[in-house]
Amino acid sequence: MKVLIVGLDGYLGWALAIYLFARGHKVCGIDNGSRRRWVQEVGSDSLIPIQSMLDRVEIFRKYFGGVFNYCDTTDSYSISENIKNFHPDVIVHLGEMPSAPYSMMNNKKAVYTHINNISGTLNILYAMKKHCPDVHLVKLGSLGEYGTPNIDITEGPIVIEYKGRKDTLPFPKQGNSWYHLTKIHDSNNIQFACRVWGLKSTDVMQGIVYGTSIPEMEGNKSLNTRFDYDGIFGTSINRFCIQALSLLPITLYGKGKQRRGFLPLKDSMQCLTLAIENPPKKGEYRVINQFEEVYTLDKVAYTVWSIAQEMGYSTEIINIENPRIESEDHYYNPEHKKLLELGYKPTSDMKFEVESMMGDLERYRDSIIPEVIDPKIRWK
Amino acid sequence: MKVLIVGLDGYLGWALAIYLFARGHKVCGIDNGSRRRWVQEVGSDSLIPIQSMLDRVEIFRKYFGGVFNYCDTTDSYSISENIKNFHPDVIVHLGEMPSAPYSMMNNKKAVYTHINNISGTLNILYAMKKHCPDVHLVKLGSLGEYGTPNIDITEGPIVIEYKGRKDTLPFPKQGNSWYHLTKIHDSNNIQFACRVWGLKSTDVMQGIVYGTSIPEMEGNKSLNTRFDYDGIFGTSINRFCIQALSLLPITLYGKGKQRRGFLPLKDSMQCLTLAIENPPKKGEYRVINQFEEVYTLDKVAYTVWSIAQEMGYSTEIINIENPRIESEDHYYNPEHKKLLELGYKPTSDMKFEVESMMGDLERYRDSIIPEVIDPKIRWK
Repeated sequence: MKVLIVGLDGYLGWALAIYLFARGHKVCGIDNGSRRRWVQEVGSDSLIPIQSMLDRVEIFRKYFGGVFNYCDTTDSYSISENIKNFHPDVIVHLGEMPSAPYSMMNNKKAVYTHINNISGTLNILYAMKKHCPDVHLVKLGSLGEYGTPNIDITEGPIVIEYKGRKDTLPFPKQGNSWYHLTKIHDSNNIQFACRVWGLKSTDVMQGIVYGTSIPEMEGNKSLNTRFDYDGIFGTSINRFCIQALSLLPITLYGKGKQRRGFLPLKDSMQCLTLAIENPPKKGEYRVINQFEEVYTLDKVAYTVWSIAQEMGYSTEIINIENPRIESEDHYYNPEHKKLLELGYKPTSDMKFEVESMMGDLERYRDSIIPEVIDPKIRWK
Repeated sequence: MKVLIVGLDGYLGWALAIYLFARGHKVCGIDNGSRRRWVQEVGSDSLIPIQSMLDRVEIFRKYFGGVFNYCDTTDSYSISENIKNFHPDVIVHLGEMPSAPYSMMNNKKAVYTHINNISGTLNILYAMKKHCPDVHLVKLGSLGEYGTPNIDITEGPIVIEYKGRKDTLPFPKQGNSWYHLTKIHDSNNIQFACRVWGLKSTDVMQGIVYGTSIPEMEGNKSLNTRFDYDGIFGTSINRFCIQALSLLPITLYGKGKQRRGFLPLKDSMQCLTLAIENPPKKGEYRVINQFEEVYTLDKVAYTVWSIAQEMGYSTEIINIENPRIESEDHYYNPEHKKLLELGYKPTSDMKFEVESMMGDLERYRDSIIPEVIDPKIRWK
C-alpha cells in the first residue's frame, strides 16, 4: 500500500515509516518540524539524538526510496497539493500538537492548539474529499478523549435506552485538557465528514506509548526516533525512567491511582499497521481503542523503580501535588476487542520492555537536563 | 445587573440590549461588525433597514447610557481588556458565525468558522478566569447540536447504564454542519472550563427564532434589529415569509417533515433574561433547551402560506432537493422544563406572531433581492 504519514518527523511517525517499509509498503511523509520547535521552546530536547530534518529527508530517500516533504497541515493549499501528488491509499495523521500541559500553558497556547489540530484535520478531510475520496484516514486520537467514566467505555458508539426508546449514539467524551478536547473536536469532525461525504476513517483512541526503538531500526543510529522526558512533552512513564536514571525521586501526581492504558512502541506500530491493512468500508467511521493493558500509575512507577534498583540506580517513589485536575482513583475499563480480532498479538511483559528502554536510555544519562522534568504547568 | 453582550450588532444582540435596558439592567456591548460583512459577502443585506454601527454606538450612548465598543473576539487582548474594563455580572455570548451553509461553503470557510467561534469562546473563558471568575457566561448554543436522535433529548447530562454500571454523562451530540460542530466544540470547552476553573455558565440550546421586533422597540425605527432571508443567513421560516411576499413558491428542503424547535424573538429575549437573572452556582455548567414548541417544517410553511393567502399573496408550497444531508422525517423530542420552572410564559400562538412579522416585512417588499433566496451551498 501507499501510505502518507502526516507528522513523519515525530516519535511515532518516524518509527511507523521504518516499520511499514519493512513490511513492504511504499511510504512517504510530511512534517513542518514543529515538534522539535515546541520541545526546544520548553527548554528541552530529544534525549536520544536524532538526525536533523534535512538529514532525514536524505535518509528517507536513500534507505526507503520515499519522499519526505516540508508541509504545515494548517496550510490548506500545501496539504492539498501533497495529498494530490502522493495520491496515497492511506493517510496516517499523526501531525498534531500532542501535549496536554503545553495546551494548558496559557490563553495563546490553548487557542494555538485548537487552531493547529482542528484546522490540520479539516484541511486533510477537504483534500481527501477533493482528490481521493476513497483514501482511508487513520487518525491518531487518544484514550484520554474519554476521560474516566464510571461505566465501561465502548469501542465505538453506545446503545442508549431512555424512557422506553433506544438509539446508538457516539460515546460521550470528557477530555481533561485543551489538547484532549481538540482530539474530541477532531473525532466529531471526522465522524461528520464520513457521514456526509462518504469518507472512511479509523479513529485510533491510543493509550500511552512507551519504548525507545523497534527491532526494524536494527540498531542503526541514523534511524533513531525521538525520546522526550520533559514535564511538558514527556509521558509519565518516560518521566519515571529519567528520574530513576538521574537518581531523583520518581514522582506520582496526586494519589497515583490513575488508571491508564499503555502499550509498547512496537505494539503501537503493529496496531496502526493492522488498522492500515484492514480498512473500514466507504463512509465508515471506525473507532479503535488501542492499548495492551490498563495499569495504575503507581504500578508503572514501581516497575520502573524495581528495574532501576536492579541496574544500580536506587531511588524512591513519592507523591507530589497533582498539577492537573483529574480523578486520582477511579473505575476504568475501555473495551478493546477490534485489534485483537484483526490479529493483534499484545506484548504483555511490561517489565521486559521497560528494561530494554532503560538500557537504551542509560547511555544518554549525561545529556539529561534535570530542570525540565518537574511539572511547571498547573491546570488551575 | 451589569450585562456585557458579545455580538451586540446582531439580530439577537441588539434586541436583547433593548429588552434588558427596559427591565432596568445596565447594558454594554461589543461587536466587530462581521455579521454585516458576511451577509454582504453573500450578496444580501438586512431587509429591515438598520442603523450603521457608528450610529448605533451613538444611539446606545444616548438612549441607554451604555458603551458599545469595537472588538473582535479572536483578539484575546482586546476581549480581555473589554471584559476587565466593563467588569460585568453577566456575559451573554452571541458573537459567533451563525450560518450552517456559510460554514459548508468550502475548506476556507470551514476552517474560518472553527477558528472564529472556538477562539472567541476560548478567549472569553480565559478573560473570565483572569478578571472575573464569578461572572456568569450565558452562551448561545443551538438545538442543532443534538442532531435528531431517536431518544428524548435530555436538558443537560443523561444517566447511562451499561453492563450493570451507571454514570451521568454529557448527552451525545451529532451536529449536521461545521457550524453546528463548532457549537458542540464550544459546549465541550465551556464544560471543561467550569469543571477545572470553577467558572459558571448557561449553555443555551436554542431553537429557531423568528420575528421582526419586540414591544420594547416601540416602533422606533432607529432601534430596528436586522432581518436576513438569504439562503445562507436566513432561517427556513424567514425564507418562507419572503418567498410568499415575493409571490415565489415556498420551498421545503426534501420531505419537509424535519422537526425543529421554534420560538418568537420576544420569547428568546424572555428566556435569555430568565437565564441571566437566575444564574447557576459557581462551577456549574447548566444546559437549557430553549424553544416554545416543536413543529414540522411543512406545518410552518403552511402557517406562512395561509397568512400570505389572507394578505392577498397567493403562492404554493413545493418540495425541492435538499441541499443538506439530514433526516427528513424523524423522531424529535428535546426536554424543556428548566425555563418553564424559572417562569417562562411561552407564546403559543405562532399564527399571530407570523402575521405581525409578515405585516412588518410587507413594507420592505420592494427591497427583496429574489436571487439570494435559493440554496446555493450543497453539503455533498
